[in-house]
Amino acid sequence: MNLKDYIATIKDFPVKGIMFRDITPLLENGEAFDYACNELKKFALEVGADVICGPESRGFIFGCPIAKDLKIGFVPIRKPGKLPRETVSISYDLEYGKNVLCMHKDSIKKGQKVLIVDDLLATGGTVKAAKDLIEQLGGEVVGCAFVIELVDLKGRELFKDIKVKSLLEYEGE
Amino acid sequence: MNLKDYIATIKDFPVKGIMFRDITPLLENGEAFDYACNELKKFALEVGADVICGPESRGFIFGCPIAKDLKIGFVPIRKPGKLPRETVSISYDLEYGKNVLCMHKDSIKKGQKVLIVDDLLATGGTVKAAKDLIEQLGGEVVGCAFVIELVDLKGRELFKDIKVKSLLEYEGE
Repeated sequence: MNLKDYIATIKDFPVKGIMFRDITPLLENGEAFDYACNELKKFALEVGADVICGPESRGFIFGCPIAKDLKIGFVPIRKPGKLPRETVSISYDLEYGKNVLCMHKDSIKKGQKVLIVDDLLATGGTVKAAKDLIEQLGGEVVGCAFVIELVDLKGRELFKDIKVKSLLEYEGE
Repeated sequence: MNLKDYIATIKDFPVKGIMFRDITPLLENGEAFDYACNELKKFALEVGADVICGPESRGFIFGCPIAKDLKIGFVPIRKPGKLPRETVSISYDLEYGKNVLCMHKDSIKKGQKVLIVDDLLATGGTVKAAKDLIEQLGGEVVGCAFVIELVDLKGRELFKDIKVKSLLEYEGE
């Protein structure tokens, strides 16, 4: 299955100069969505993840089916004001703009092997921030997995010490 | 399995007077998350859904694993500015505050049988807005499914013409 057939590209969204890769056609196709999740699930097994973390909100889309199928926990990484109990947070630069991520302070057990899942690897800022938060809570990040990687942005270089998986690579095109 | 063991209750979040039901302990427990998704999946089969819709972002958490396991599509219902192609949108009142929901104009095929999935049924405003949007696009909403129902708020009464499923009921407690 060629998953690229299910990715739409939208020029200048959300801001000028960005080629936005839209995963919604992939989600709308049951076979393609199942296939993509299964490929990421294989990687979760390969790195020995015992919990999946995903940043709000597209990280939920791929992270949750993987966690459910492997019967392991899913820990949401959220924007401020969403998690009701005591949190830790981190601020970082996005590909466009700024962002803050939060996690519940008790959401990761010391030594848990964590796989971070998101739809897309761009500059890697979101996942690097997520990794820092998880490590602050005592988790061991064993890998990160994406449907799409924008290889020109070299986000992968931030994660030389862990395994990185992407299903689809895009260059400036 | 008693899923209520995995729901935390936080008083006065996000605003005074609200008893917030927190699903994150359930998500963090692989067995409980799997069990909850499977119960909702049975309902999806019962109503004959051929696509799952879930509102951003907790609707993604339960909707995506169900769609993936049934190999049917998942259509995200999102906040403004998130979907890159042509959208339809609807504004409505929340339990606290106001909200706008958007869907891609081409995301639902005419006559598709849609199950709406979200974590929680409160006043029903979000799901009623989602149902109206889906119907505007030509879909047939055959049911809505939730992990938690706040029965005092009587949201269920908005959906007398479709099947409504919840796994856990809470009264003002």
